[in-house]
Order: sequence, then C-alpha cells, then structure tokens
Amino acid sequence: MSPTMVHEIQQTNRLFEEIAANRNIDGLDRVYTANARILPPGAEMINGRENIKSFWRNAIENMKIASVKLETVDFELLGDTGVEIGRATLYPKDAAEVTVKYVVIWKRESGAWKWHVDIWNPNA
Amino acid sequence: MSPTMVHEIQQTNRLFEEIAANRNIDGLDRVYTANARILPPGAEMINGRENIKSFWRNAIENMKIASVKLETVDFELLGDTGVEIGRATLYPKDAAEVTVKYVVIWKRESGAWKWHVDIWNPNA
Repeated sequence: MSPTMVHEIQQTNRLFEEIAANRNIDGLDRVYTANARILPPGAEMINGRENIKSFWRNAIENMKIASVKLETVDFELLGDTGVEIGRATLYPKDAAEVTVKYVVIWKRESGAWKWHVDIWNPNA
Repeated sequence: MSPTMVHEIQQTNRLFEEIAANRNIDGLDRVYTANARILPPGAEMINGRENIKSFWRNAIENMKIASVKLETVDFELLGDTGVEIGRATLYPKDAAEVTVKYVVIWKRESGAWKWHVDIWNPNA
C-alpha cells in the first residue's frame, strides 16, 4: 500500500472524528460512498448515504457523543477495495467511554477512498 | 461469480448451520481459515481458529442455541477474497429467536472458501 493511500485512508478517518466532534453531518458526504450501507448494533441495516446521515445525526445527539477516536488495526488492499479492521472509542459527554470494534469495506468514489460497508459492535 | 463458487459458499454456510445444530465444533476447521478473526458483540476480537472454536463451544452452550439459519444478502468477489453481507437467525431452545446481521470476509484456504473475518451484531 502506497504512503499516499495510507495518508488518504487516515485523512478520511480523521474527518469522521472531526464530524463527530463538531456535529458537521454534511461532511459525511466525504466519508461514505453514495450507496454505502451501515450495520449498526440494535438496528436494521441502513442503505444509502442520506439515510446514514440521518442515523448519525440522531445517534450523536442521543448518545451525547463528545468525540470519537478511530484506530486502524489491520488494512488489506484488494484493487479498488480495502478491508479495514479497527477499534473505535466513543466519548459521551456525561458517561464512561465505550470501546467498539469495526470492519469497514472501503471503495474509491470520485477519486477518493470512502467507507462503503461499515459494521461495528461494542466490546462489552 | 461462477455457479461452482456460489455452491461452495453456500455449502460452507450450510456446514456452519449443521455444526451449530449438532455441536460438532471440530467441523469449524472447514468453516474458518487457520488465522481467522471473529469480532463478537460484547467481547474482544478473537484471533485464530482454535480460539474461535472455544468461543463457539461456549457460546452455543451458554445461549442454548438449538439451531442457526444463515442468509446471504450480498456477495462481492474480489479475486481470492469475497465480501459477504448476511442475516442470521439464532433459535435458542427456550427463548425467542434473535436476528443478527453480519459481514464475513472470505478467503481461499487449501482450495476451499472459508471465513477469514467474521463480525456480527443483533438487530434489536
């Protein structure tokens, strides 16, 4: 994997952290592909970026998330697809942090690497 | 994707169902790659087939699982890797069924398609 690609992947992950911290939900246009799917714990699969934006708008509000930290544990490049395993830490405003693990399938869209399938679950 | 491969994928999924129903845990040698990883809800990531077998031995026992049904929702082939999105239904012996969604990264090992990364979470 080229240094450029590592940089692009990490930039997208930093962007998600920035969006969560600043509630800048429209920034998710640069994180998820248009036809992305998320598989959140406790809910059905959600299809399409606009529905995903609604999900995160509500989730960040309801969980009172102050910030999120993403850490890549493993990344495999397969042509125009990437498979990432990672850990996330959610920091709610008034509660203890929550540790989550995830798998993200990455795709290139309009020259940028984005999340195409995103599934996670809590460690405890 | 060739009919042969569809058949192979479905055979592996049927094998998992058979293993869950019959508690034939050693059959997981034919389901997971040697270096597979699972990311179960409520626990840390588990590395390696032997540890995964211990996990399933305990989980099937503790949840009193009578049977499992797997359903492929989407499958993308990327060379020697496959990305599957699916739904699973767990039928415990004495409780209501539990619906789960999952992402499995498939790899070829010794000429057979197996689960290499396996993450899931409950719908409710």
